[in-house]
Amino acid sequence: MAIIKNEKITSRDNDFAQWYTDIVKQAHLAHYSSVKGCLVIEPYAYAIWENIQAVLDGMFKETGHENLYMPMFIPESLLKKESEHVEGFAPEVAWVTYGGKTPLEERLCVRPTSETLFCDYYSTIINSYRDLPKLYNQWCSVVRWEKSTRPFLRSREFLWQEGHTIHETAKEAEEETLRMLNIYKKFFEEYLAIPVLVGKKTEKEKFAGAEYTLSLEALMYDGVSLQSATSHYFGQKFSKPFDVKFVDRNNQPQYVYQTSWGCSTRMIGALIMVHGDDNGLVLPPKIAPKQVVIASIRNDENVLGAVDKIAETLKKAGLRLQCDVSDKSAGFKFAEYEMKGVPVRIEVGPRDVANNQVVIARRDTGTKEIVKFEDIERHVLALLDEIQANMYERALKHTKERTYTCTTLDEVKKIMETKPGFIKAMWCGAPECEAKMKEIRGMKSRCIPFEEEHIADTCIVCGKKAKHMVYWGIQY
Amino acid sequence: MAIIKNEKITSRDNDFAQWYTDIVKQAHLAHYSSVKGCLVIEPYAYAIWENIQAVLDGMFKETGHENLYMPMFIPESLLKKESEHVEGFAPEVAWVTYGGKTPLEERLCVRPTSETLFCDYYSTIINSYRDLPKLYNQWCSVVRWEKSTRPFLRSREFLWQEGHTIHETAKEAEEETLRMLNIYKKFFEEYLAIPVLVGKKTEKEKFAGAEYTLSLEALMYDGVSLQSATSHYFGQKFSKPFDVKFVDRNNQPQYVYQTSWGCSTRMIGALIMVHGDDNGLVLPPKIAPKQVVIASIRNDENVLGAVDKIAETLKKAGLRLQCDVSDKSAGFKFAEYEMKGVPVRIEVGPRDVANNQVVIARRDTGTKEIVKFEDIERHVLALLDEIQANMYERALKHTKERTYTCTTLDEVKKIMETKPGFIKAMWCGAPECEAKMKEIRGMKSRCIPFEEEHIADTCIVCGKKAKHMVYWGIQY
Repeated sequence: MAIIKNEKITSRDNDFAQWYTDIVKQAHLAHYSSVKGCLVIEPYAYAIWENIQAVLDGMFKETGHENLYMPMFIPESLLKKESEHVEGFAPEVAWVTYGGKTPLEERLCVRPTSETLFCDYYSTIINSYRDLPKLYNQWCSVVRWEKSTRPFLRSREFLWQEGHTIHETAKEAEEETLRMLNIYKKFFEEYLAIPVLVGKKTEKEKFAGAEYTLSLEALMYDGVSLQSATSHYFGQKFSKPFDVKFVDRNNQPQYVYQTSWGCSTRMIGALIMVHGDDNGLVLPPKIAPKQVVIASIRNDENVLGAVDKIAETLKKAGLRLQCDVSDKSAGFKFAEYEMKGVPVRIEVGPRDVANNQVVIARRDTGTKEIVKFEDIERHVLALLDEIQANMYERALKHTKERTYTCTTLDEVKKIMETKPGFIKAMWCGAPECEAKMKEIRGMKSRCIPFEEEHIADTCIVCGKKAKHMVYWGIQY
Repeated sequence: MAIIKNEKITSRDNDFAQWYTDIVKQAHLAHYSSVKGCLVIEPYAYAIWENIQAVLDGMFKETGHENLYMPMFIPESLLKKESEHVEGFAPEVAWVTYGGKTPLEERLCVRPTSETLFCDYYSTIINSYRDLPKLYNQWCSVVRWEKSTRPFLRSREFLWQEGHTIHETAKEAEEETLRMLNIYKKFFEEYLAIPVLVGKKTEKEKFAGAEYTLSLEALMYDGVSLQSATSHYFGQKFSKPFDVKFVDRNNQPQYVYQTSWGCSTRMIGALIMVHGDDNGLVLPPKIAPKQVVIASIRNDENVLGAVDKIAETLKKAGLRLQCDVSDKSAGFKFAEYEMKGVPVRIEVGPRDVANNQVVIARRDTGTKEIVKFEDIERHVLALLDEIQANMYERALKHTKERTYTCTTLDEVKKIMETKPGFIKAMWCGAPECEAKMKEIRGMKSRCIPFEEEHIADTCIVCGKKAKHMVYWGIQY
């Protein structure tokens, strides 16, 4: 049975940007606040965030990480200690200059990221190699004074987690950098049902102050890429200016090796843009605030009794559940829960109840089945797994279809003007050639994959000897 | 068996303030940061906070509340809309005046509390009585530019939750105000093992902008009171200036009735000051990050085998557990876990293992018992309940011993100079008499209890006719 088009949402094939804005508004995900560029994250989106947090936090703790909380302010002198870092962030921080009526002696920025604070802290608590590693993480909000903003994708304040670890050796720190990238990859693929590219950022695109940056790149429905999580290796680039030293096994002073890694509420934007359709959100069961909605069609005694019974069974099975026995029309209810992306809808009407059965609809494909009472639990549990798998497969198929191998700029241009996606192309390593690529709809290098294919001998831009195969794409 | 005095901690009877500072430092709860008046909340304290959050958040959700997230900035014009509110908070807010290099058109304060933001949001999403109530809460950090600070008790930034609800009628909103106070009371008594007074704040002590404020007051070991949570009834005091209106059941426009309620990381300070002793923290089992530590005494094969076996059993029983089989001395290990306030310690040594037994020590009383292997699980589960109950009873006894009924200022003075605590005394209702009480070591009214006793006919200060029985105390 086909899904009927929701009139409140622009078609995603007609105007993707408007479609996105419509969903954010109609599914009550975010609301513009009185503070320009800052959002109210509404309860439904926040519930998605809480589920994301619960899973990721569990993964971090399983791998030995502990949470703590750092101040939200960074004194200007502290931000300035690492020169590349301050250059990267100073242009986009919010500055506090007054406490009450008193001007501050030194202005404070609201943290855009907390490397400097962690280094400052580590420098006072580390003495010996016995104190290492420290594997810390914090969940907090950060501020970056962006000029143009978009809900979840780019806003002046956003929620995220930032892990910051220090280690005795470069090897350990590099292993941590990769370990956390792989945790993000697992989370994106298994929970968010979003396939990702992983690899190393080019020098130009790495984090301000890092030795190198690893990243997760996902492709949205419209073929635009989204940098979805990053993991940075700092070596001793921060530990030297911040004097984070320890006495090593040979009784010699050494600087620690450091990493940081983070992901944010931007993931909610990715969920919308990878899975959503013209009827609203489509949420993967593992992350959906409600996995099943039981909606009554007319509320007679038998229907209400059946709803209660089914709810009890499914609650016992551990599912996140909502019952809607309001007197709204069936059509209204269906549209509402489709908008909210609830993976499974159980429709309970008088005629079905008389036959000891219900109708079960899946959100990802819109198909419906009639299921006998005694089969509901088994059917729903299997269906949730199937939906989770199908959503991943569908997104993977789309990403594969939109991943192109190119050897000339003309090919790239043509693709980017019609059906954009990831471009695989060779690169000589020169920043000038990256700059040249940017002329095509603002394209940037996404990452250099860990296993590079050999597409050609020469750089797609300048024709000189190629150094790397790079994934390119336009970006949010 | 008596606990041996920990040398790193000042005795709490000699110098309570230094004792507090020593515990915060030695138990690795908080660390002063480079930002004056702001703290690093270290992993052990943050783990306590996570347990507090998990329980309270569950209680909020059970009573129908949803979480969301508001921006951390408030435009000055928004803060100014309710006149009492801005008077109360403007002197102690941090002001953001620059975004990058650009001066802001309107300065923004970092939220000291979010009534104004919630009102602004509510004014745009409420239309009809059908949209009510809204029962929202957020977990976040807030900033108040305090002059003198103290870890967890008063700092420029702290973590808290703030609930903000709007209702169709005054009655419903007042019920909510009381409901949330009672939830806090239950949480303090049943989880933190801290007895509390509840009642209404005087006009002078209420929240800036509230119709009235209800509060939870707890007595610390040194007899000083701590305002531990508050629940405010706003009536329509915010909804009018913020124009939060709805169409009621008679099709008439009405302003909503509003509440807010909050508690903070100050609770960690209360845990330290109510339960701690000269050997460090003493944590109630329901909130302790680790409920049991299994510490080996010498690490031979039999000991390690026994530790593993016991750990497996207790993990299966659902306990939060730590094993320490490091080669540190037994004395060092015991002192460390006493410092951290772990409720139960299981000591596993070679001689005991040979006899199929262990020594089990409880943190609250320091007593030890020999327990046979097969009885460990049963014994530990019962012991944790007993410790939780005993800690509450002990704190209640202390509070009762330090609660005095007074009819003259001389009595009050004498008590406050020797063994301070809560003072029950009559009051005429005049702010001048409250001011007079303040001359005694800065005493303030704590609250007017819901059930007032009749102690005397006249005000303890001025001798005029008494209106209320008030609890008074000096405060953190």
